[in-house]
Amino acid sequence: MARKLINNPNDLVNELIEGYILFNSSKVKRLGDLNVIIRADLPVKDKVGIVIGGGSGHEPLFLEYVGKGIADAAVHGQIFAAPSPDLTYNAIKAVDSGRGVILLYNNYAGDVLNFNIAQEMAADEGINVQTVLINDEISSAPKERMEDRRGTTADHLLFKIAGAASGEDMDMDSLVRLLRKAVYNSRSLGVSLSACSLPQTGFATFTLEDGKMEFGMGLHGEAGVKKVDLMSADDTAKTILDYIIDDLPFKKDDEVLVVVNGYGSTTRMEMFIVTRKIYSYLNGKGISIYSAEVGEFCTSQEMAGVSITLMKLDAEIKKYYGCPV
Amino acid sequence: MARKLINNPNDLVNELIEGYILFNSSKVKRLGDLNVIIRADLPVKDKVGIVIGGGSGHEPLFLEYVGKGIADAAVHGQIFAAPSPDLTYNAIKAVDSGRGVILLYNNYAGDVLNFNIAQEMAADEGINVQTVLINDEISSAPKERMEDRRGTTADHLLFKIAGAASGEDMDMDSLVRLLRKAVYNSRSLGVSLSACSLPQTGFATFTLEDGKMEFGMGLHGEAGVKKVDLMSADDTAKTILDYIIDDLPFKKDDEVLVVVNGYGSTTRMEMFIVTRKIYSYLNGKGISIYSAEVGEFCTSQEMAGVSITLMKLDAEIKKYYGCPV
Repeated sequence: MARKLINNPNDLVNELIEGYILFNSSKVKRLGDLNVIIRADLPVKDKVGIVIGGGSGHEPLFLEYVGKGIADAAVHGQIFAAPSPDLTYNAIKAVDSGRGVILLYNNYAGDVLNFNIAQEMAADEGINVQTVLINDEISSAPKERMEDRRGTTADHLLFKIAGAASGEDMDMDSLVRLLRKAVYNSRSLGVSLSACSLPQTGFATFTLEDGKMEFGMGLHGEAGVKKVDLMSADDTAKTILDYIIDDLPFKKDDEVLVVVNGYGSTTRMEMFIVTRKIYSYLNGKGISIYSAEVGEFCTSQEMAGVSITLMKLDAEIKKYYGCPV
Repeated sequence: MARKLINNPNDLVNELIEGYILFNSSKVKRLGDLNVIIRADLPVKDKVGIVIGGGSGHEPLFLEYVGKGIADAAVHGQIFAAPSPDLTYNAIKAVDSGRGVILLYNNYAGDVLNFNIAQEMAADEGINVQTVLINDEISSAPKERMEDRRGTTADHLLFKIAGAASGEDMDMDSLVRLLRKAVYNSRSLGVSLSACSLPQTGFATFTLEDGKMEFGMGLHGEAGVKKVDLMSADDTAKTILDYIIDDLPFKKDDEVLVVVNGYGSTTRMEMFIVTRKIYSYLNGKGISIYSAEVGEFCTSQEMAGVSITLMKLDAEIKKYYGCPV
């Protein structure tokens, strides 16, 4: 049985959204009775709109990323399931101020399918909709097939950069170019120390034996790439960073953003112990940390584990990352 | 075996602090090699100092509450263990600018013993040190013995109010009066859905059978007051609120701060489902929510569950709560 505080499992996403809207009613509202959260002040005049979204169950994704300086709307599917096209279509309509809308989301087959349908529906009405896919997870496909890689915690940084840049009168083409560059500069890899359970059913999405850890496990229980005996925090951080650094590759004198993301039940103590090693290891390689974020940004219910994301900075990305949200 | 990302278990607190300082080096620093985190700009001239602290393992408590507009120093014991007197004594000395220091911490026997020794050591050197104990947890002793109650998530609000008021030139006596009023106006109660494990050993602090939940469980595995079959989120919130509302009591037309605190592995989805019920239930009783905070503030490793805190507001408390941190 899942040890979860819920009511009727069918109402999970609806009640999540109701609770969040009550909590944050000065800044966001719900679009009708849809599982779509929008800025309270939409549409924002003369701004390219930013629509994000995906399956629920990864909170704070996606609804907590809506507001001034960040996304204009978030569409929520059911737990670990892509949002249906009508949600995204309605979000696009609510957000569009005449300068077009960018769909910025993580690369999963179901999401791509449904977001693409919404894009076509909106295009039929003459709305300029462009897509930027996030595919930062390096273990899910080799570099030669980067376009097949899954999206994970780089979204936390991308949403912020998209919100800041779109709020400063950047046009559609420039925005798409900026965001694709920021995606290309991002690399993530995680390690799981336990499974997670689906809140609707209480069943675990996979099993991971006591004393083992698995690199590259997906946010929905997708199989990882390497299962090993539990390693120390320092060795874990080093292993992840070696994979990430090699992949871009990140080089001496690069300046990076770092995200240390907890999957759900991992404590902040563990995250800071990992952060400590990241600083010393990157420092030893001459890679400079411009800023680090440590917390739960892209979760998988009560899964134990962390992911590390590096994004290589240039002056343009740095400018927009630094804008207030 | 604990599913924890750590190195040598003896280094947990030291590495937590090292990681946090690297992460936040512009605002905080470590006091020598002690497990004491202080504002980087200490001592702040003409300000009553605020020293907080307690056992580690409850992160973000206590170290993440140090900074401008919040505490001046945090002293950390080992996991779930009170900090030794010398740490607090050194923190007092570092913080004092001549106007005295307040020790603001949760009411646990070991903490009281050790903080009191530090207070005496500092008093011997002529430093005016006052203590404000936080005792918001209503199930740990009856109301007639409020002074025996444990401190929990009200500390999140108290630290903010103390930091704001002490930063606005409030003198020692006025500050102590304000903080004691705010403590008195605070009530908390939680429910646990699982045990937590000690990161040093991997052993659980207690057992809780599948399908059960326990109200009033302590942050260190102290026995609760009522074990029941798993209830819905709505019934759980209502049960907790009934206890809390009755205890102060909170009345129609009261204005309150609400904190919904996750103990560790509880998802933000669950927290917002609970938050939803809190809004409707308090609204039905004519109690007005000035602001709510939803997150992990006072954790117990990977324990599942939530606590709810209400603090009754007046104009003075509201003023300081609203100050930027």
